[in-house]
Order: sequence, then C-alpha cells, then structure tokens
Amino acid sequence: MSDPLEKVSSNKSFEGELTKYKFKSAALGGLSANFNLFLPTNASPSNKVPVLVYLAGLTCTEDNGFVKGSFLGPASSQGIAILFPDTSPRGAGIQGEDVDWDFGTGAGFYLNATNPKFSAHYNMYTHIALELPTVIEAAGIPIDWKRQSIFGHSMGGHGALTMYLSSPQKQYRSASAFSPVSNPTKCPWGEKAFAGYLQGGVEEAKEKYDATELIAKNKEPVHILIDFGTADNFYKQNQLLPENFLKAARDANYDEFQVRVRSQEGYDHSYYFISTFASDHVHFHANFLKA
Amino acid sequence: MSDPLEKVSSNKSFEGELTKYKFKSAALGGLSANFNLFLPTNASPSNKVPVLVYLAGLTCTEDNGFVKGSFLGPASSQGIAILFPDTSPRGAGIQGEDVDWDFGTGAGFYLNATNPKFSAHYNMYTHIALELPTVIEAAGIPIDWKRQSIFGHSMGGHGALTMYLSSPQKQYRSASAFSPVSNPTKCPWGEKAFAGYLQGGVEEAKEKYDATELIAKNKEPVHILIDFGTADNFYKQNQLLPENFLKAARDANYDEFQVRVRSQEGYDHSYYFISTFASDHVHFHANFLKA
Repeated sequence: MSDPLEKVSSNKSFEGELTKYKFKSAALGGLSANFNLFLPTNASPSNKVPVLVYLAGLTCTEDNGFVKGSFLGPASSQGIAILFPDTSPRGAGIQGEDVDWDFGTGAGFYLNATNPKFSAHYNMYTHIALELPTVIEAAGIPIDWKRQSIFGHSMGGHGALTMYLSSPQKQYRSASAFSPVSNPTKCPWGEKAFAGYLQGGVEEAKEKYDATELIAKNKEPVHILIDFGTADNFYKQNQLLPENFLKAARDANYDEFQVRVRSQEGYDHSYYFISTFASDHVHFHANFLKA
Repeated sequence: MSDPLEKVSSNKSFEGELTKYKFKSAALGGLSANFNLFLPTNASPSNKVPVLVYLAGLTCTEDNGFVKGSFLGPASSQGIAILFPDTSPRGAGIQGEDVDWDFGTGAGFYLNATNPKFSAHYNMYTHIALELPTVIEAAGIPIDWKRQSIFGHSMGGHGALTMYLSSPQKQYRSASAFSPVSNPTKCPWGEKAFAGYLQGGVEEAKEKYDATELIAKNKEPVHILIDFGTADNFYKQNQLLPENFLKAARDANYDEFQVRVRSQEGYDHSYYFISTFASDHVHFHANFLKA
C-alpha cells in the first residue's frame, strides 16, 4: 500500500488548480514520486471529471507538459483534468542509470522492467496505469477514472499508444501522440531501452511494448490520433517510424476514422510543435471522454 | 550604428516562426543582446504585420514570455508579431550587478541609467523603444512599426505602462500589464532600482519612470488594461500598488473604457496567472493594432 499524497504546491490557472503532489510509490520500489494534476473548476465531489494522462518524453519530468504544452486552457474549457506523471523513477541508485540521457533516469520507457537489475524500481507502466489512479482516488480527488484517455510526446507517445493498445479492460477511451516512437523494436532508442530493462530484450518487447506490433494484432475498435513534424530530426533519423505504425494499422483494416496519422510540414520535435496542436489533441479526446 | 542581426535558432510554431536573434547593441554599450521574435505566417514583404512588445519581469530573460506565456496561439490567429526583448544588459561587468536578484543583471527596469556607474550599459528604454525597431527594420523583417503596442509582467508591466505613457510621439497604440509594479517610486523594488540607476534617484524617476505619476499628468486618450491576482504575494507586500494607479487614473478623469484594472480572485504572481489571461490581452491589443 502506498502512503497518502503530500501536496507540494498549488497554483490557480485557467480558473482551475494545478497541484504538484509527491508520495512514496510502491510500484517504484518505495521511491518518492512526483506528479502534477490539473483539476478544472467544475470538478467537485458531486461532479467527478474525466481525465487525460500526459506522458512526456526523454529527459523530461512531470513539469514539461504543463509548462510548455499549452494544454491547460483547452482542458479547462472542456472541463477535463490532466495528470502529468514523471518519466521514470528518481534516485533508485542503480549503477549506470544516470550515465545516458536516453536510458535510466528520465527514460523509463513506460514499461515494467524484467531485468532483475531494474525490476524493483523501473515499473512506470504499473505506476501510471494502476498506482496513480488508486492513490488519487484514495485522496478523494474528484476524477471519474472510467472516463480516461492518454496522450504523450516522443517516448511518451510510445507510452500512450502501447498503454492504450495493451490495457486489458480498455482502460483508456482514446490515445493520441505527438512525434511518437511508433515502432521501438526497430529503432535505436527502443533497442537500447529494451535490451537494458527487459530480460527477453527486444523479443519480449514485441509482445507488449511496441505500438506497431500491437496494432497489427489488435481486433478492437480504436480511436487514435498521431501528429509528427517533417522537420523533426529524430523522425529523419528513423527513431519515430510513424509510417510503420500507419501501414500496420491500414493492413489491419483500421480506416482513417479509427487511426489518423498526420504529417505536419516544417515542424520539429519540440514543444513549439506540441503547443501548436495541443488544442486539437484535447478536443480529439473530449469527443470520447464526454460521449 | 549597431551590427546586423545574427540568427541563433528558429522553430515553426502555430504556423508562424519563433526566431532567436543576437546582435551587438549600441544602446547597451556594445554588449551582445538577445531577443526572440514571433512572426505569424501571414507576414510578408507585401504584408507587414503589427507587433506587440512583451516585457518580462525580474530575473527573466527573452525566453520566459514565449515559453510560458501562451501568447503565440492568440497572436498567430490575429496575425500579430510579438517581440520578446531581454530584461537587462548581460555581462557589463559592473561591480555588484550580479549580487541581487532585484537589481542589476535581469533587473534593468526598462529605463536609461543616469548614474555614471551604469549609464554606459543600462539603457533598456532606448534599446526597446528605438534600437530594436531600427535593427529589425534594417534586417528587412516585415513588421509595421507604426502599429505597435506593448505589454508586460511585473517589472515588465511597469516598463510597458511607463514606455506607453512617456513615449513622445505615441509610439504605442495600447498598453497592458499583468501584476505591474504600478507606482515604483513608492515600493521597495522601485526605490532600490532608482537609487542605483539614476543620479537623481526616486525624484528623477517621478518624471519618467512611474506609471502612477505619469497617468496623473497625462492629457491624451489612453487604452490601458491591467490584471492582477489577489493571491499574489508581491501584491500583498505592496510592491505592485495597482490601486494607486487606478485612483490616479480616475482622478485624471480616465473612465473604465480608457483604463481598466481588474483584480482576479485567487491568482498569484506566476505564469499560471499570465497564461490564463494571455488570450484576453492579445485580443485587447488587436482592437487597436488592427483598427
């Protein structure tokens, strides 16, 4: 059982409240974990609000999304909460975890590690899918977890797509992503992460942590929106591979109403790009969260 | 004469372009100065666009406004450029300028220093009102400087109001401010800045650099919007004094159509507050910039 939440700070914004919490996370092996939660002003015990989960990219923390993403205004006007988790455990003290920017601290890849070296702490999948809803619910915060969608950027786009496609009871109503790592078993970032975190390496990842593999064998209806920029250097370096995801989706007979992948001319990998389409993504999810 | 602009970086955002420039600033005594410029997509040599100048607060740089302010979306949809100058000279090497957060580097107070210790470098008034328009125009960037308005936050709100009210040829069409230092000759921040930068100290500042003093003796029609938050600790500590400005404006017969001062319940001094009302302020200025 996790300890109760501790409020770190709280600021009024767009008529609602952006609050930073910390707590001792059981999923992350007892480490202290932070998250931010935006609650729109219409949330109350008699009016629980739907929630969007935002997963940030490599090197980010729980702060990047709300500081730079321009999500709070659209979420406020739609009456939707946004949960901003961290991207990895912090302070596990595992040898080598702080050496690289694309592995270890700040790069949890939204999976549950099976390599014994990491498995006590690197369980961001459980932290986000199970633990955070549980501790937030236990704290009496008025969120309706049955109306939950998920989105993210880059590594967080990978997290959003894979958590959406692999959640057994359709935990999320819709998923969207900015510049997602769409086929990580075929790109350097994913190969490195899976080789490190998973005992079965890339082969193990194909079962659970690769959006392109997951959409290929998925049978359920889906609601997915993806944007990427044509001036994105990581796209050019084949770290993102959105075309692979799109091809697998079309091969599996998902049409453009179920899976939409948009290339945005001239945009790069940054929050300049994300903020531009932030409102689009929040409104996409509102269609399903408020249905 | 200043050297030509050097482009540091450029990112597409909200269909327009956010570019960071640097140049050797004559107004700042030959120091290298940075600024950011957002140019909406409709700007072209045959369609020069109006411009809003955003002045940031104490400790900030040319980056805070566009990263956290949520101004680019509204500016893009209105077809208005935004210029984000720095808040002070950098690297003047004057003894003591880096000691305090509210004086010296990061705290230029948008004035022209008359104390010989600072007067070679601390000339942010000239830098913003004259130099930046000149060098940007010389670079062929399609901005219509006859359609210019100004806004800012905290110390930058002070800058916006005083530059608006003191500009001899009505350089700016309108001014607005978030949590401005509204009567700086009567608050600790202003007293300290004026005692340091001006040979005549606070008395000299009353003539040129105090919005409350300036509105009291102004005769021209004005367009001013001010927002402040009631949970703002600097407001509570009497650093901002917006009531003094409002009283002086009403005593000078400016009605609520010419000078509007709004207290926003529960908001603090931060960019959480600014971003909430960013769209409001851009649209306020659009009324005059596009008239």
